[in-house]
Amino acid sequence: MSAGVDVIVVGAGLAGLTAARRLVEAGRTVRVLEARDRVGGRTLNHVLDDGQVVEAGGQFVGPTQDHVLGLAEELGVQTFPANTLGDTVYVHGSRSRRFRGDIPPDRLALADIALATTRLGRTSGEIDVAAPWEHPDARRLDEQSLATWLRRGAIGSGGVELVEVLLGSAFGAAASETSALSALAYIAGAGDEIHRGSLDRMISVAGGAQESRFVGGSQLISQLMAEELGDDVTLGAPARRIDHHATGVTVTTDAGVFHGDQVIVAVPPHLAAEIEWSPQLPAHQDALFRRMTFGTLMKCEAVYERPFWREDGLSGQGVFRGGGQPVCSMFDNTPPSGSPGILMGFVGGAGWRTWAPRSARQRGGAVLQSFARVVGPAALAPVGYFEKDWTAERWTRGGPTAVLGPGVLTTLGRWRDRPLDSPPSTPHSSPHSRVHWAGAEHSDYWNGYMDGAVRSGQAAARAAIAHSGGLS
Amino acid sequence: MSAGVDVIVVGAGLAGLTAARRLVEAGRTVRVLEARDRVGGRTLNHVLDDGQVVEAGGQFVGPTQDHVLGLAEELGVQTFPANTLGDTVYVHGSRSRRFRGDIPPDRLALADIALATTRLGRTSGEIDVAAPWEHPDARRLDEQSLATWLRRGAIGSGGVELVEVLLGSAFGAAASETSALSALAYIAGAGDEIHRGSLDRMISVAGGAQESRFVGGSQLISQLMAEELGDDVTLGAPARRIDHHATGVTVTTDAGVFHGDQVIVAVPPHLAAEIEWSPQLPAHQDALFRRMTFGTLMKCEAVYERPFWREDGLSGQGVFRGGGQPVCSMFDNTPPSGSPGILMGFVGGAGWRTWAPRSARQRGGAVLQSFARVVGPAALAPVGYFEKDWTAERWTRGGPTAVLGPGVLTTLGRWRDRPLDSPPSTPHSSPHSRVHWAGAEHSDYWNGYMDGAVRSGQAAARAAIAHSGGLS
Repeated sequence: MSAGVDVIVVGAGLAGLTAARRLVEAGRTVRVLEARDRVGGRTLNHVLDDGQVVEAGGQFVGPTQDHVLGLAEELGVQTFPANTLGDTVYVHGSRSRRFRGDIPPDRLALADIALATTRLGRTSGEIDVAAPWEHPDARRLDEQSLATWLRRGAIGSGGVELVEVLLGSAFGAAASETSALSALAYIAGAGDEIHRGSLDRMISVAGGAQESRFVGGSQLISQLMAEELGDDVTLGAPARRIDHHATGVTVTTDAGVFHGDQVIVAVPPHLAAEIEWSPQLPAHQDALFRRMTFGTLMKCEAVYERPFWREDGLSGQGVFRGGGQPVCSMFDNTPPSGSPGILMGFVGGAGWRTWAPRSARQRGGAVLQSFARVVGPAALAPVGYFEKDWTAERWTRGGPTAVLGPGVLTTLGRWRDRPLDSPPSTPHSSPHSRVHWAGAEHSDYWNGYMDGAVRSGQAAARAAIAHSGGLS
Repeated sequence: MSAGVDVIVVGAGLAGLTAARRLVEAGRTVRVLEARDRVGGRTLNHVLDDGQVVEAGGQFVGPTQDHVLGLAEELGVQTFPANTLGDTVYVHGSRSRRFRGDIPPDRLALADIALATTRLGRTSGEIDVAAPWEHPDARRLDEQSLATWLRRGAIGSGGVELVEVLLGSAFGAAASETSALSALAYIAGAGDEIHRGSLDRMISVAGGAQESRFVGGSQLISQLMAEELGDDVTLGAPARRIDHHATGVTVTTDAGVFHGDQVIVAVPPHLAAEIEWSPQLPAHQDALFRRMTFGTLMKCEAVYERPFWREDGLSGQGVFRGGGQPVCSMFDNTPPSGSPGILMGFVGGAGWRTWAPRSARQRGGAVLQSFARVVGPAALAPVGYFEKDWTAERWTRGGPTAVLGPGVLTTLGRWRDRPLDSPPSTPHSSPHSRVHWAGAEHSDYWNGYMDGAVRSGQAAARAAIAHSGGLS
């Protein structure tokens, strides 16, 4: 067993590293344990042949995401605007149509989309992000899927399908799998303490959560934090067991056994439930974490000598409605230098379930066909192609975040962030009192996003400092 | 590493032991690895002070459950009828009313109940238990919760609440959490290849799945099989890792490393996904298994000198509708000798979520109050009381079975039983070809029941024998 530290941090994603960095700044000793042989969690830079990077994981930032933006600034990581010049293309059946803005020009579905977005906006505006279960209609909203809720009133299948596409890359799941209440809470969290969350801010590029990207790739933020932390980070050390006892915590990993006064667990909740806990997690928290499975999502990217679509007045953005397409939405993912040109498509939800089990060749061919529907046949001849299936990733198991099915949030949601020192039936001074949670799923605002991850890491560091009697 | 066997069986519940026994009968060598220090999985005998036993886990059997009944007969385990003499009591708000049969006498809800059961029967009758996703309306039925589906048409909240109670102890989950399609498939499986599944057979005592009990307790079946298998069963050996390679499988447990030609994994699917697989499970199967979380359920039982309620013409059965009661349904659980008298209540779904985190004393008091509503104040003075929270059980994590939320069955259901030799993109002769699945969740008929467990064990044994070139 190694010598003890003040706080062990399990998971070297944005949340864990943010927490560790804050703790070190406050004079605490830390040990960050990471299962993978790299840091960054759901952010992952892909290195191109010429040495430039492009993201294969979480990448976009936008207004009100000040926590991750502030962290990046501290670390000297700059942002640049995602490409918004030119027309976006809406692909529906055999037709491709250019449009501007974020709402596809589907005349038949337009009224439904307007109604759906209005209802989503109005109802999500009524929700307290810290306690969605307090909404007067919470039980009814939670007992139905988002698909059911959207179909109510005048919404036809067109509006439902398009809202699915718009939310699909945010959720990685079909509207059928998501509780209406939890989807509404997710939208309500697309803001901050001053600016109310909004669907528009969530799905938009300009003015929204896809507005900017990080120069050097989003993983750079984690890499720089890990560099600062130096030897305090241990890679290849998946936490298999956590013993929490009266005098501290012991974390058993494949790379050794570590002791600390406290532990911050900053891994996806459904993986936290896989750790052998002693004593066991409270049954309610375990039941919740197991139900926080991630959506199913992969990213597919094609590399071209230059972003040729820009010359045609196209933004490289595409929105795909139904029709068996693997891709639900695509973006221009060209690096800030302007070349090579890169197109990135999300294969999520129902698309993932159909296409992920097929051979890489079949899938890659279909993805390029999708791209061609947006930018023309030149998309069929990339100079490079890569994909990242986050659902097959051992230490993530899906993407981009947890999807709560109906009936879970109202009955188990209260247990999400509860540190193990305060189960209702346990006195504060119990031996359960040394475990804190972090990770993008433990944030009320921008839950599931990089900003939520940073928020949660900061909060967990404050909690650990407070617990040990220090000032935060 | 121990010497290799023909087939390693992970899990010594009814499914795993049935498989192992069949394999030994066919001349194969086996090694059964069980995480707990006992066999029987979700069946568990509680020993009373006088040495008699009563079940704290799965216990009832009935018509068409011929696989578990046949197994019991082979082992010399007899059945006896559950008590049906006397009136059942319906508790709603401040009122308690006696009735006969299985449908509570709620005049306001009666029309709704009739309509709901008719719709459930008709639609479940259209479902192919082997492929529910082939139903012409499958997508629509799967995108909504059972609660949503029940509320359609003329169903008011009375009918929904009562169907919830009737199904609650079967599912351990609220109708809000279950996909309508998966609930209908579950009902369709309450039968066999000759007798169509029916809601009536599922929820009834006389003529239904609660008709009979096993003399000596249901766990006795597993105990007798384990006795036959003798040293082939290793307890205290949770499987932490399974390597499947070209020449066999290696199972790493806390009690050593075991080698076999094949492996049958007979544990709850959501726990099978926690095993470290090398190579990893196909992402689709992993995604499905993670979504097969169990319902939340506990059993609470009170012991009395004699079953005094029988003298009052009461069956000891009770049905509770809403009102914050911890218990949703209760049964006379008296041993076949006729004494002591035992009342057993299910605390499941929403009831579990409210009552499980409270202190044992608070909960026990409330449970006895519930019992008193059915059999009178004498219930408040038991000579003994015990409870079993299956959700807190490390190697089960819920009960009685897996609950599929909306959107899962149609998109991932096909992967449930698929042995690792036949992922669509892998040739049959791949190194993935030595893993078979068993467990109550891997049966089309009586899925989640003891009969389904036995069926799945028999099927897995046949598959393993066929794989090794033998005759089944």
